[in-house]
Amino acid sequence: MPDKSSRQSIDDLQSALASSDSQAIVDFLDSAEPAEAVHAISHLSEADQSRLLKSLSWEEAADLVDDLPEEQAARMIERLTVDEAAAIVSEMPSNERADVIARLPELEASAILDAMPLAYSRAARRLMSYPADSAGGLMITEYLSYHEHQTIGDVLDDLRIHADRYRRYDVQYAYVVADGGKLVGVLRLRDLLLSAPDDRLSAAMIREPLSVCDTAQLEVLERFFGRHTLFGVPAVDDDGRLVGVVRSTDVEQAAAERSSRSFLKIMGIVGGDELRSMPLRIRSMRRLSWLSVNILLNIVAASVIAFHQDTLAAVIALAVFLPIISDMSGCSGNQAVAVTMRELALGFINPSDLWRVLGKEAAVGVINGLALGVLLGLVGWLWQGNVMLGVVVAAALAINTLVAVCFGGSIPLVLRALGQDPALASGPILTTITDMSGFFLVLTLAGAVLPYLTS
Amino acid sequence: MPDKSSRQSIDDLQSALASSDSQAIVDFLDSAEPAEAVHAISHLSEADQSRLLKSLSWEEAADLVDDLPEEQAARMIERLTVDEAAAIVSEMPSNERADVIARLPELEASAILDAMPLAYSRAARRLMSYPADSAGGLMITEYLSYHEHQTIGDVLDDLRIHADRYRRYDVQYAYVVADGGKLVGVLRLRDLLLSAPDDRLSAAMIREPLSVCDTAQLEVLERFFGRHTLFGVPAVDDDGRLVGVVRSTDVEQAAAERSSRSFLKIMGIVGGDELRSMPLRIRSMRRLSWLSVNILLNIVAASVIAFHQDTLAAVIALAVFLPIISDMSGCSGNQAVAVTMRELALGFINPSDLWRVLGKEAAVGVINGLALGVLLGLVGWLWQGNVMLGVVVAAALAINTLVAVCFGGSIPLVLRALGQDPALASGPILTTITDMSGFFLVLTLAGAVLPYLTS
Repeated sequence: MPDKSSRQSIDDLQSALASSDSQAIVDFLDSAEPAEAVHAISHLSEADQSRLLKSLSWEEAADLVDDLPEEQAARMIERLTVDEAAAIVSEMPSNERADVIARLPELEASAILDAMPLAYSRAARRLMSYPADSAGGLMITEYLSYHEHQTIGDVLDDLRIHADRYRRYDVQYAYVVADGGKLVGVLRLRDLLLSAPDDRLSAAMIREPLSVCDTAQLEVLERFFGRHTLFGVPAVDDDGRLVGVVRSTDVEQAAAERSSRSFLKIMGIVGGDELRSMPLRIRSMRRLSWLSVNILLNIVAASVIAFHQDTLAAVIALAVFLPIISDMSGCSGNQAVAVTMRELALGFINPSDLWRVLGKEAAVGVINGLALGVLLGLVGWLWQGNVMLGVVVAAALAINTLVAVCFGGSIPLVLRALGQDPALASGPILTTITDMSGFFLVLTLAGAVLPYLTS
Repeated sequence: MPDKSSRQSIDDLQSALASSDSQAIVDFLDSAEPAEAVHAISHLSEADQSRLLKSLSWEEAADLVDDLPEEQAARMIERLTVDEAAAIVSEMPSNERADVIARLPELEASAILDAMPLAYSRAARRLMSYPADSAGGLMITEYLSYHEHQTIGDVLDDLRIHADRYRRYDVQYAYVVADGGKLVGVLRLRDLLLSAPDDRLSAAMIREPLSVCDTAQLEVLERFFGRHTLFGVPAVDDDGRLVGVVRSTDVEQAAAERSSRSFLKIMGIVGGDELRSMPLRIRSMRRLSWLSVNILLNIVAASVIAFHQDTLAAVIALAVFLPIISDMSGCSGNQAVAVTMRELALGFINPSDLWRVLGKEAAVGVINGLALGVLLGLVGWLWQGNVMLGVVVAAALAINTLVAVCFGGSIPLVLRALGQDPALASGPILTTITDMSGFFLVLTLAGAVLPYLTS
């Protein structure tokens, strides 16, 4: 499936780099679709990626780095000199800057921070001190704030004088603070339009503005913006001092990234986000750390088979059904896991709903277990011409489907109640349980009716 | 794990409803955390949910419905009378209104549309004619637009006169159109501050504003907002006429919902989003439709075992390793699927990178296959005291891990190239292939060295 145009743009970028033609590089980045540019950059060698950043102005380089996923951005920054890195990250928005620096090895990070203007490095260190998915970790520190004793005219003057600097801000509101930086009000830009220049801000502002605590977690912020259609909300510390502004778009993005991380964890990528441009050793080790836990759980589950080898040896046809029952129970259980994870995310259920979820799943489990069991039982009966073999595999799959959906529906709730991450552990716990019970059911049921199976 | 407060708030809401005390209901909704309110509402009976909506003003009801997931919102709306439903959805933002109506059965939807003010139903029908995840499906039709011949003063007057109506808009920009509705410029609110009232809009506006085509897909919009930090972008039709405004927050939300849908599909919830409040029959049938495909694939894969029953009967210990190799290969392959799906979503790879992905995965597959193979081989050797059994299971797992990561990494790319949804089909295709090759490898390798295994 060759894709001419994407191959072409990689070649274009490489030849521009090879000829050190910085105008051609800028032209390429300006004319390429953003996705095309990201794709082409990810295909460059590490040396070419560094050369690319160096051929751009600091501001252009910062825009480019900002477009890339953070782990890729951090790896490109890491290969620059400390001064180059500091110059580029200084041009990034405050929250992205802190995120990229936080992904660097500690020594590099503090060297780059030391090489930045003091005001920037202080702000970055403060943002980095918050958990990434909290208001403090998501907020930007570029915002307009004025003292309540200032006038509308003062604000308008300030806006005109610093228009250049503010152009890079996402200015939607101006915040009003009292002595000590305490947040006391907010001004919408349209309020400025409708007020007299002599008015004091304390008269024109909206008092007791909505705000969030700087330690508020992502879930709280999502609900806040779900309820309030605002572009941003001021974040205050424990003393009510304004410390930053959380924008709804950053909250939406963080929520999307969190659900992408959940997805990766459920699929077994748990050591951190993986890109294929990372070194083989890291990729392999991270995946192995997860697989080695899984193989131990698998061996434990399969040991149930070892305990019933005699039954299996007597009716070798059962061996065909063991992996089917293991896989199908895993599928049914995963469906229940997915519905619970989604209802948890939507706020429809919480751990107190365990019994309700179990009841709802049990009903589905009985119906689907019977349907799948009858289907597999018919296969067993017709294939071996032994009705009892059909009955055994039908009963085992039916009962195990019920077990699987009940555990699948409830495991994420129990993990959440225990403060654990449901995305990480639900899958392996589920399949270990359903494998063990599936193997146990097939082999003990078969053992109980062995004379009918071997006749 | 009883959760007092959430139990308490369900009881509070139910008793307010039972006493038909509409003030108590409004007080509950105002004072409850949004998540708590959603949780409590989802625990009400259907009759109580209808009573709840009827006890609120149309506007309050619209806000409430807007906070709920769309499928839940649609189910609540569906149970109202046509006039009630029309009154409530008329108060919703235009894009949410169209989304909720689109989820209703066709007859109900058109009855409700007919009962709405003509301007609203026309707008809703137009929005519904676009695919949900396109600019047209996401855009809002509440925006400010003025003719280029009007003056700044005209705009300021209009803003003051209609302040009440515009308060419900997310006004960040005003759009400027020429005759025929063609988009020619954009005004930022701050431009209004800095211009003289007599200026014509054509003089004050930013010309040739950024815009998107109304048929632009979600990916295009994501990239647009990734590149441009804007709150919204005007959408134009083929003739360049302004038809709506796409807000970045709606794009972020649609992207999050799309990845949540992907997650559900991968986990086997494919017939549509499931909530446990849906009728048992629907939930059960949707899950079964997926499971019944899966069980057929499983039976096909397991038939490989049936063809090698003699080998298995001779070395019954192999039966213990078949499910382990099936599960572990599935895990390794899923990791590769996850990384490819993420790199596809980030734009790092496209189907033209098939060979590159295969090369990268093969390297991981060799290392992880050897590591896992040696581990399982040791288990086989030590358990049965037969070194050749260890060699067989080690070789089978090592080779099958390589097969699994190569297929896992490339299946989503091939499905994408064929225009299929990778989230839907990658899992079942992968596990069918890896199960078949895993069973085949174990049993044919064992068959080749059978004398050493049975000695």
